[in-house]
Amino acid sequence: MRIGELSRRTGVSVPTIKYYLREGLLPAGELTSPNQASYDETHERRLRLIRALLDVGGLSIAGIREVLAAIEDRERPVHKMLGAAADRVVPRYTEEPGEGVVVARKTVAELIARRGWSTSPEGPAAEALAVALAALTEVGHGGFAQVLDTYAEAAERVAKADLEYVAGNVEREELVEGVVVGTVLGDAMFAALRRLAHVDASRKVFGAGG
Amino acid sequence: MRIGELSRRTGVSVPTIKYYLREGLLPAGELTSPNQASYDETHERRLRLIRALLDVGGLSIAGIREVLAAIEDRERPVHKMLGAAADRVVPRYTEEPGEGVVVARKTVAELIARRGWSTSPEGPAAEALAVALAALTEVGHGGFAQVLDTYAEAAERVAKADLEYVAGNVEREELVEGVVVGTVLGDAMFAALRRLAHVDASRKVFGAGG
Repeated sequence: MRIGELSRRTGVSVPTIKYYLREGLLPAGELTSPNQASYDETHERRLRLIRALLDVGGLSIAGIREVLAAIEDRERPVHKMLGAAADRVVPRYTEEPGEGVVVARKTVAELIARRGWSTSPEGPAAEALAVALAALTEVGHGGFAQVLDTYAEAAERVAKADLEYVAGNVEREELVEGVVVGTVLGDAMFAALRRLAHVDASRKVFGAGG
Repeated sequence: MRIGELSRRTGVSVPTIKYYLREGLLPAGELTSPNQASYDETHERRLRLIRALLDVGGLSIAGIREVLAAIEDRERPVHKMLGAAADRVVPRYTEEPGEGVVVARKTVAELIARRGWSTSPEGPAAEALAVALAALTEVGHGGFAQVLDTYAEAAERVAKADLEYVAGNVEREELVEGVVVGTVLGDAMFAALRRLAHVDASRKVFGAGG
């Protein structure tokens, strides 16, 4: 199909598609004449993935480039590949961590040991958790960490359901894409569900008092 | 304290503090001379809140302004105030929703009815969930919605723990702040925990095969 048809099918404007082509997020089409290229379903699917990561996942163009690189690196074993892809969709903190983060890292390492999780207490996800815990303490809500084990248990259930979906429904080639999409869109989904459940819980606790 | 001391205590640079003052995110200090203002603990706390929402929560300056406005609106009853604050930290989608979103809204309304949640199927959180579900379908992972009830159950547990923390530990005046901080930082916390649990679950499923 031509670029106009690709635009019509995906709802992404032609200038935006050309921008993604220039940025290398979308592979070039097959040249059918010096000024015209032809695109297929793989382009359509890639374009929808870019939009989902951008609009719903809130990733930057640079972040999407990293995620796509992980999806395309077919040489690593599955387990390592999934880990690398997951690491790239975790926000990374470039600022020098404060004192609070040093304390929070210990809390995170203890949690990982307590849950018996076979995961490194030094990876980007553990660091992101330590940064969030330190930020809670900094704004005077350090006590919120009392919910940590409830959150961890909920995360275990959710992660198990995620992996069951991935193992049962996704072809090997699409495994990494499935994990990345599930990670980013799954976060968006869970965040929205948590808010819906908040409204219900809040009505029950505060509704009568007005 | 002077602006230099405020900067030293919070790790936020003086030019950045001045920027927040100009943008109205941080209330002006008390003038002690025509060119000098004095700041107190409320400024320090507000500054930490701004940095947490910005760095960990990933909110924009405009988003933070809305959240702070909700925190400061003391006239609304508690339950409505919490709802308004929560609504503002949900990403809102300004684009015209596609066909997929119309279908997904029905799925969301059915879920809300099935769980018996006393919450509107038309609020921003329900819309955010519909957008995430539609995006999953668009990128060819519509089947991922099979995890929806597992996610919803996990969200209920997490929301209950959140509200118990808020009801038990937070003063009435800080209630909204607690919910906003808990919502934004709680999302970051849960997302990090979900990734940690993924690594563990992934090792169990894919670890042996390599």
